[in-house]
Amino acid sequence: MSTPQQQAFLADFRSMSSFGATAGGGVDRQAATWADGQTRNWFRGLVEGHGFEVRYDQVGNQFTLVEFVPGAPYIAIGSHLDSQPLGGRFDGAYGVLAGAHAAMRLHEAFRVQDETPLYNIVIINWFNEEGCRFKPSMMGSSVFTGKIPAAQVLATTDPHGVTVREALESIGTIGDFSLDVAAYLEIHIEQGRSLEDDGLSIGLVESTWGANKYEFVVHGEQAHTGATVIADRSDALLGASSLVVAAREIANHFTTAEHMVITSCGEFTVFPNSPVVVANRVNLLVDIRSTDPTVLAAADAELHRRVAQIEQWAAVRIERGAEHIWAAKDYDAAGLLLAAASAEKLGLTYGTVRTRAGHDSTNMKDIVPTIMLFVPSAEGISHNEREFTADNDMLAGVDLLTDLARRLVTGELVRP
Amino acid sequence: MSTPQQQAFLADFRSMSSFGATAGGGVDRQAATWADGQTRNWFRGLVEGHGFEVRYDQVGNQFTLVEFVPGAPYIAIGSHLDSQPLGGRFDGAYGVLAGAHAAMRLHEAFRVQDETPLYNIVIINWFNEEGCRFKPSMMGSSVFTGKIPAAQVLATTDPHGVTVREALESIGTIGDFSLDVAAYLEIHIEQGRSLEDDGLSIGLVESTWGANKYEFVVHGEQAHTGATVIADRSDALLGASSLVVAAREIANHFTTAEHMVITSCGEFTVFPNSPVVVANRVNLLVDIRSTDPTVLAAADAELHRRVAQIEQWAAVRIERGAEHIWAAKDYDAAGLLLAAASAEKLGLTYGTVRTRAGHDSTNMKDIVPTIMLFVPSAEGISHNEREFTADNDMLAGVDLLTDLARRLVTGELVRP
Repeated sequence: MSTPQQQAFLADFRSMSSFGATAGGGVDRQAATWADGQTRNWFRGLVEGHGFEVRYDQVGNQFTLVEFVPGAPYIAIGSHLDSQPLGGRFDGAYGVLAGAHAAMRLHEAFRVQDETPLYNIVIINWFNEEGCRFKPSMMGSSVFTGKIPAAQVLATTDPHGVTVREALESIGTIGDFSLDVAAYLEIHIEQGRSLEDDGLSIGLVESTWGANKYEFVVHGEQAHTGATVIADRSDALLGASSLVVAAREIANHFTTAEHMVITSCGEFTVFPNSPVVVANRVNLLVDIRSTDPTVLAAADAELHRRVAQIEQWAAVRIERGAEHIWAAKDYDAAGLLLAAASAEKLGLTYGTVRTRAGHDSTNMKDIVPTIMLFVPSAEGISHNEREFTADNDMLAGVDLLTDLARRLVTGELVRP
Repeated sequence: MSTPQQQAFLADFRSMSSFGATAGGGVDRQAATWADGQTRNWFRGLVEGHGFEVRYDQVGNQFTLVEFVPGAPYIAIGSHLDSQPLGGRFDGAYGVLAGAHAAMRLHEAFRVQDETPLYNIVIINWFNEEGCRFKPSMMGSSVFTGKIPAAQVLATTDPHGVTVREALESIGTIGDFSLDVAAYLEIHIEQGRSLEDDGLSIGLVESTWGANKYEFVVHGEQAHTGATVIADRSDALLGASSLVVAAREIANHFTTAEHMVITSCGEFTVFPNSPVVVANRVNLLVDIRSTDPTVLAAADAELHRRVAQIEQWAAVRIERGAEHIWAAKDYDAAGLLLAAASAEKLGLTYGTVRTRAGHDSTNMKDIVPTIMLFVPSAEGISHNEREFTADNDMLAGVDLLTDLARRLVTGELVRP
């Protein structure tokens, strides 16, 4: 039996999932597109209906202010409403809506219960967590935490030359608001299968994986696929394909019983990409992740050795462009213990997990005490229209988030 | 010292090269684009200025009628004005303009010389030889020779969903003209380096290579590049990249001192192609070519064995879509001897060559006696803005084409 509050959450989740909905049951809400704008406006209407105020900062982060104590500092709860192309309806959006419902429940509770909040709550819908239309990912939280200048983000263009500033202005979700926060709380679907495999309903994130992400440009020489003999070819597609295969071989080689290595290439663009033309250029992104810094360093060195070998074998030149390096890092230990106590009190099964994916909390944990929670993902499927989390798992997460938010707002983790 | 006729050819060639000109010295005139339409209209103006009539057939092949004997059958000289994206200014366009100038010279010559033409000449600018915007290549000549139905071609769409019919109507180069021809003559740049390496100015094409072209679709499962463990991945990009590498390994393995094998992948498109998403699908084209049918068959069988291995290794499904098979075939032997005699008479150095690239003459040789001539390409560079053929080589080709056209028109190869 679900409560009226739980029914309200599920009803709002269904409404939210209709924005940018795809035929396959997912959503396509890439950052600052019309569909993202629609979702942001719907969310604004939802929280304004509960009497909360909405503000935007200079890079489109959307802040919902929930005031308990006029003038008090803020505890932030955040995630993102943007999605991958043909993404799932849970990734990010679940966490933002869960934050709103936790705040609504506390808003109600503090009117009747004898507790003294020390903080206000701000729910943050971070701009462009996904990083598909505009690179890099976690853009809004990177600016908020001072890792990337706002001016650089605003001038970043999508593949059609539209800047972030233009895109945000076109959907009307940009402003000049700013705010400091005292602690950060995020809930997200796991996007892996460890909770499901272990039969747990909550994951407490203890650390991030280390991740090295590289943009490579493979340079070849445009030629005729029929007429040009092999000896005369400098085939950028062959070089880039070899790099994709090498990355997988490295993951297989360096993974041990103790430490996993994951390598990926998500974006791979061939120029001029015509049936009878040997490619002159391929742009691709390769990333390597591992739980262990030593293993990561060894795998990374092997990748760069392989790059040099491929340059020889395929007669191409491989240019290394931008890189993004995230060291493996722990979440706040006191926050982890507090989350465990809260789950224990609510009678939820839980365990600690490491996150391989980046989240806005990856940025936030570097500036304030941060707690990151996971709920299960069916079969670990994510960035896919078939992404799924059961209603009961979502509801357990909202209950936990609400209890933790109450603890943070009443000073259990940090004090003003 | 060049003659006024030669200077006129070079001047027209420079004018023609300004249509769709790119910053890198090449042209971008994909089939039935605005730039292709501009070039076709310019060519029409050029030949109409010499008193010739222009007609279009139902799939946009452009016919320039040069009448010597009212009611007589036609000898055709053809090539194509369309180009690759960022293609060279010689590929195809040289042959069409050379045909026009050969016809102009004969038109002049027959007024003053005592020779009796038995045929008229038609210069054909074939629609969409390149096959980049609309697939397959050699589209116009495939319809003309009855290999593909016109209705199928007219309904073929480009990546934006525009049909061939719509594109041809938008540039106004479609009609209902039809014509039978008695023999076919084509001159083209070599797009290889054998003439240059051997110090020859003319190549007489004795045969085509055999070519097997396959459209593959690699199916994977969309997933998160960070969160999804390797064991759970079905990465379409890994499967497709493995296929590209396998194709090159096959070329290296099967090439011997006697027979060359060439493999290529020109088009390779990744879906959804987002930085943090494991690809769910890659569409790619793979072709294998060889001078020897037995070697080609062995290499082809190996490719399909490798496809099955890659399906296992990368945990993907590889679907084989459309295929285009061209058997190695000889050009008309009498035509080859006639071309040799003509080159001999003009004092040009020449040798026989095989063409690896497809040409409209590949289609035409299956229905009428066909002669295919090559002029040198600097360093064999083609389908590239840096494609280059020297003025003297172009002019020698026009001289040879003119002499051969004269011989054909006066009945030296076929007689009405």
